[in-house]
Amino acid sequence: MGSLGNVTPQSMHFAEPLRLQSGAQISDYTLMYETYGTLNADKSNAVLICHALNASHHVAGTYADNPKSAGWWDNMVGPGKSVDTDRFFVIGVNNLGSCFGSTGPMHTNPATGKPYGAAFPLLTVEDWVAAQARLAERLGIEQFAAVMGGSLGGMQALTWSIMFPERLRHCIVIASTPKLSAQNIAFNDVARQAILTDPDYHGGDFYEHGVVPKNGLKVARMIGHITYLSNDDMAEKFGRKLRNAAETNDYKFDFGIDFEIESYLRYQGDKFSEYFDANTYLLITKALDYFDPAREYGGDLTKALAGTRAQFLIASFTTDWRFSPERSREIVQALVDNRRRVTYAEIDAPHGHDAFLLEDPRYMNVVRAYYDRIWGECAAKEAA
Amino acid sequence: MGSLGNVTPQSMHFAEPLRLQSGAQISDYTLMYETYGTLNADKSNAVLICHALNASHHVAGTYADNPKSAGWWDNMVGPGKSVDTDRFFVIGVNNLGSCFGSTGPMHTNPATGKPYGAAFPLLTVEDWVAAQARLAERLGIEQFAAVMGGSLGGMQALTWSIMFPERLRHCIVIASTPKLSAQNIAFNDVARQAILTDPDYHGGDFYEHGVVPKNGLKVARMIGHITYLSNDDMAEKFGRKLRNAAETNDYKFDFGIDFEIESYLRYQGDKFSEYFDANTYLLITKALDYFDPAREYGGDLTKALAGTRAQFLIASFTTDWRFSPERSREIVQALVDNRRRVTYAEIDAPHGHDAFLLEDPRYMNVVRAYYDRIWGECAAKEAA
Repeated sequence: MGSLGNVTPQSMHFAEPLRLQSGAQISDYTLMYETYGTLNADKSNAVLICHALNASHHVAGTYADNPKSAGWWDNMVGPGKSVDTDRFFVIGVNNLGSCFGSTGPMHTNPATGKPYGAAFPLLTVEDWVAAQARLAERLGIEQFAAVMGGSLGGMQALTWSIMFPERLRHCIVIASTPKLSAQNIAFNDVARQAILTDPDYHGGDFYEHGVVPKNGLKVARMIGHITYLSNDDMAEKFGRKLRNAAETNDYKFDFGIDFEIESYLRYQGDKFSEYFDANTYLLITKALDYFDPAREYGGDLTKALAGTRAQFLIASFTTDWRFSPERSREIVQALVDNRRRVTYAEIDAPHGHDAFLLEDPRYMNVVRAYYDRIWGECAAKEAA
Repeated sequence: MGSLGNVTPQSMHFAEPLRLQSGAQISDYTLMYETYGTLNADKSNAVLICHALNASHHVAGTYADNPKSAGWWDNMVGPGKSVDTDRFFVIGVNNLGSCFGSTGPMHTNPATGKPYGAAFPLLTVEDWVAAQARLAERLGIEQFAAVMGGSLGGMQALTWSIMFPERLRHCIVIASTPKLSAQNIAFNDVARQAILTDPDYHGGDFYEHGVVPKNGLKVARMIGHITYLSNDDMAEKFGRKLRNAAETNDYKFDFGIDFEIESYLRYQGDKFSEYFDANTYLLITKALDYFDPAREYGGDLTKALAGTRAQFLIASFTTDWRFSPERSREIVQALVDNRRRVTYAEIDAPHGHDAFLLEDPRYMNVVRAYYDRIWGECAAKEAA
């Protein structure tokens, strides 16, 4: 297995307005994307990777100016890796409304000449998929070999199979859910309240004030982060270890840092608040809350998936309490009800929801084996 | 079963300084308390009830001026109830540093003539128990029939059995834990960050500014509240119900309220932020984090409990993911290791951590049966 080496982000502008599920529209927009590997002659080997909350189009490889800039799924995508870029033409795309170059709240609103801020429309997973579909068209890809994602990325992959059933042969949904639970929504809403009530948020128009609601973002990220880790893994890694146990084994009796876990979470929160956009955080958590493909079918997921044509790989992780295996099994059941061909892997991994981003031989091998099958089909198709 | 009817809070002043575990001291302090029932001639029927994070000395009964002011454990304590005030003399006491009348951060610091604010010392569960012990002495109670509490209150009961082994015959620890996990600490620290970074917190001295860090307190409470409810119970009660589903079944596409669960949690957060003190919230969460009686025994809970003399009732709730049954079983195991007499009840209840405050026949009956036994012993003692 090698590394992809240096990769280069690209951008594509779409001048046609995009009508959104809310009824609003975006007059024009830009999407950032990256591609790895080579599109074959019959364009049958394209794979689309959809990202989760805080990731981007930079899925794999590194940037020439920064050797530490490995993509967020670099352990999964590359030459000889589970998603083998010697075989597949892989596309990573930054979603609309995100903060890594695609059009978002920090960009200029053509209607006002000022940053969108609070005026940037709320989006749904369906809106993202509609925008991604236009990118695919412009790249000349009529049908993906696979659309794949983890967590919120998995929701996009599932939505592809519903909205564009003929435009993907395989749908790979990892550590995801057919809809958020009340508890999931609750955590998202607390995170939003932390941002919305930060005085530096300025009703979403903080750009003009030259500030960033860092405290709110920090708290939001700390909350989120707790839900990404498993209880057991947190106990194992941090337990009740004190921050400076080597120096003194005493409690500090102030509101500084006593425990390692506090130090870790505050650091994660601070780091996040330095690079992530508050409006993006808000709109992505709303897209998560709104995701519910069964909704227009009276809550019947089987009906919602009746029009799908793809084959499916669904994977979950035993210690994921954010989107537990039970939630993945609901998707599997609805697919089985529809007599779709579905492979389900429930992977015994200690790392909670975050497991979908981490190196784990069983996990990587499940995905590898599935892509071997996809590759076999591509080869057969080419030979035919 | 009747109601206690009207009850009256009392206060007691302690002029002697209290040396705290941090090394600091409180020069003098007042404790608010209430008593229900009658202390018998040999003073063998006294029960101390310890409160959790947001409760007070007002355990049972109502106040004459407010018929809706039932105490926080009124379903448990009263004439003919599980803790029968026709039999027992029950004491509720508000802890030092709390915000319901006992000396706390909002009171005048005798050293400065201004509110303590940030200068109020951090406290531990052991400090609370030491302060409660002085109250017991002044009330002439040499030995409690039982000391009892849920959650943080259970930690105080357990600490009584360690610090004053001869001063209680029974120790009742409900929905508690021998120490917080990394995840528990993480949730507490996020809540604290929300308060500490609220500009209205003013480093703890907000009293002088005539403001209250309501936004921070609200977020803190929302986080806490999520951990008090079970995932299943939240799904059952709220699911994905929309707030105004009768009017319109559409998403709002703004950051107002879409889902019932958002409405419920924000309401709980707002209500809490109107009556609870931010400094009290901070210091109580630190007392929770610091609680770890095994710490000075190299983490060996069995050793920490070796000096106890009481008999124990330990109870937990199956859906409590804040302090899960597993944590109660650790206490049980350490007591069994010490050949203490211990009764353990794991109650199948859907309501998560909050179950310890709620009406549930199985739960109430377990406690009732245990108090019947205590009463039998009291009667035998009196007859002897």
